[in-house]
Amino acid sequence: MATPTTATRPTPERIFNTLNAYQQTAALKTAIELDVFTAIGAGANSAAALAAKTGAAEKGLRILCDYLTIQGFLTKAQGSYALTQESALFLDGKSPACLASMAEFLSSKQTRSNFDSLTEAVRKGGSVWSEGRDNSKPNDEFWVAFARSMAPLTRPSSEFIAGLLRAEEGKPAKVLDIAAGHGMYGITVARKNPKAEIVALDWPSVLQVAQENAKRFGVTDRYSVRAGSAFETEMGTGYDYVLLTNIFHHFDLPTCETLMRRVHAALKPGGKAITLEFVPNEDRVTPPTAAAFSLIMLANTDKGDAYTFAEYEKMFRNAGFAKSTLHPVPEMPQQVIVSEKSA
Amino acid sequence: MATPTTATRPTPERIFNTLNAYQQTAALKTAIELDVFTAIGAGANSAAALAAKTGAAEKGLRILCDYLTIQGFLTKAQGSYALTQESALFLDGKSPACLASMAEFLSSKQTRSNFDSLTEAVRKGGSVWSEGRDNSKPNDEFWVAFARSMAPLTRPSSEFIAGLLRAEEGKPAKVLDIAAGHGMYGITVARKNPKAEIVALDWPSVLQVAQENAKRFGVTDRYSVRAGSAFETEMGTGYDYVLLTNIFHHFDLPTCETLMRRVHAALKPGGKAITLEFVPNEDRVTPPTAAAFSLIMLANTDKGDAYTFAEYEKMFRNAGFAKSTLHPVPEMPQQVIVSEKSA
Repeated sequence: MATPTTATRPTPERIFNTLNAYQQTAALKTAIELDVFTAIGAGANSAAALAAKTGAAEKGLRILCDYLTIQGFLTKAQGSYALTQESALFLDGKSPACLASMAEFLSSKQTRSNFDSLTEAVRKGGSVWSEGRDNSKPNDEFWVAFARSMAPLTRPSSEFIAGLLRAEEGKPAKVLDIAAGHGMYGITVARKNPKAEIVALDWPSVLQVAQENAKRFGVTDRYSVRAGSAFETEMGTGYDYVLLTNIFHHFDLPTCETLMRRVHAALKPGGKAITLEFVPNEDRVTPPTAAAFSLIMLANTDKGDAYTFAEYEKMFRNAGFAKSTLHPVPEMPQQVIVSEKSA
Repeated sequence: MATPTTATRPTPERIFNTLNAYQQTAALKTAIELDVFTAIGAGANSAAALAAKTGAAEKGLRILCDYLTIQGFLTKAQGSYALTQESALFLDGKSPACLASMAEFLSSKQTRSNFDSLTEAVRKGGSVWSEGRDNSKPNDEFWVAFARSMAPLTRPSSEFIAGLLRAEEGKPAKVLDIAAGHGMYGITVARKNPKAEIVALDWPSVLQVAQENAKRFGVTDRYSVRAGSAFETEMGTGYDYVLLTNIFHHFDLPTCETLMRRVHAALKPGGKAITLEFVPNEDRVTPPTAAAFSLIMLANTDKGDAYTFAEYEKMFRNAGFAKSTLHPVPEMPQQVIVSEKSA
């Protein structure tokens, strides 16, 4: 009689490791805080050399670096650590593509505290965090932290969006960047198209970060701001493009539709709304990172979600956009939806 | 000229997911708290049916179950969720092998708080938790929680150890179970060998849990206890076996050696010390779960670690054991070291 072989019998190891998965976040965050990747990139490739460089304990660094090796962020050979291609590109402070600042926002105390209350969030179907209840109201500290820490992550998507806007062709274009945050989406368009004019809309304190970035990238002469809520502030009209990057997932669909009606009114005929989002497939479990984003919205917002393309298309149609098309962003787990206003 | 292809170029996705890895722990813990796996096992296989059964919000359950599907703990087909082989065996409350209670201890508030201070722990080379500084002192609440929650995980290793002790042969055997905790290692030997007599050593409040379990498994007539520290309490002598399960990793090697000398004195000639541990290979980065255990000890203890077999063998030799052998535990990321006292 056939009995299950030990090879197919599950073991408790994966459950054990998932209950310990928070340790992966802590280890990566600690390595970033102690600037371990930068130190290894600069040649400190043993626990002793790292201790000399960072001032931390040799034992602590040995255990941390072994753990990072197990997680695939370092390699280890003959007791010597080295960066992987991934950590050299994204975690070494000397790399222009360094994403280390992202750790600050993604695993912030507030967000982790919201996940500590995940059971309650599942019970009520939304965040228990009072500030997360209404993202149409200012929450300066949170969004300034977002603007300051998440800018480096936008490079692939902002360049992809600039490409969709044919920025390199250099034709005059009036662009509204809604909930601009760090402002990098609009700023990238302005950098690539010297005839683009950007209007950034966000809360006043957040716009300061966008304006700092506009200055840093030398586009202030074509960069203006409108302070306030995306739902209430006068947006202006006659835009060629309106950018809606990572905003819809904070709200329920009727609220999104209200915003999209305002966007439709602000666009000139033939103008385009450009939505950047985590868009899961209809099954809502693929692709993994986009689909998993729903849980982040459940924990952090009152009514947010990661919507499918069918949901977006229908909602945009209700708001006046006859047709929307979906474009996966290269190198990123996000997608862009382009919706054109009838000419 | 050859340029790197986009296929080999790393993307930020894995770093993004690692900074969010704490969410995997939260989701699994929430599913256990809401008894979602048991409800699905009982046939509630849609978000609506789960909402009716658990009283939680349908939206919350849909997002949670989608996330668990992404993580591989559920399957989803035509909108209907089902248990995997793994979750049916280990997460459904109706399964005799259910490990759900483990969530309580592994991701306890205290342990997660210790990981919140991981950067400081790496700096000093040991836990910043004052209670973790000396595991030779009682810490009742913590170890009672351990004893109550971790017992189910011991099945594979306790049965393997009972096999190494040839418990099924039923020969008279006097067994000392040091830092017995839930007591399941000694109790399993007693269950399989009606002529085995177990002496359990631990802090008084923890021994109450062991005694409850001894009663539950009907071995109280051959179960006695010695309350106190493994480093100070009179152990008795003439033991055939001394069990040292998951104790050495809390201490530095000189402290372990002190304990092992006491164990050597307590054994009769030809008696065996049985050590259950996370034993990484010499490279300290494989096998992954055993090697990663070092970080848990760094965060939670003053001087603990996951030691290699070479370190254990040398330390045991110093304590009087001429020879030790290593035995991997089937289905588990741990290993057993058998050390024999000369006849």
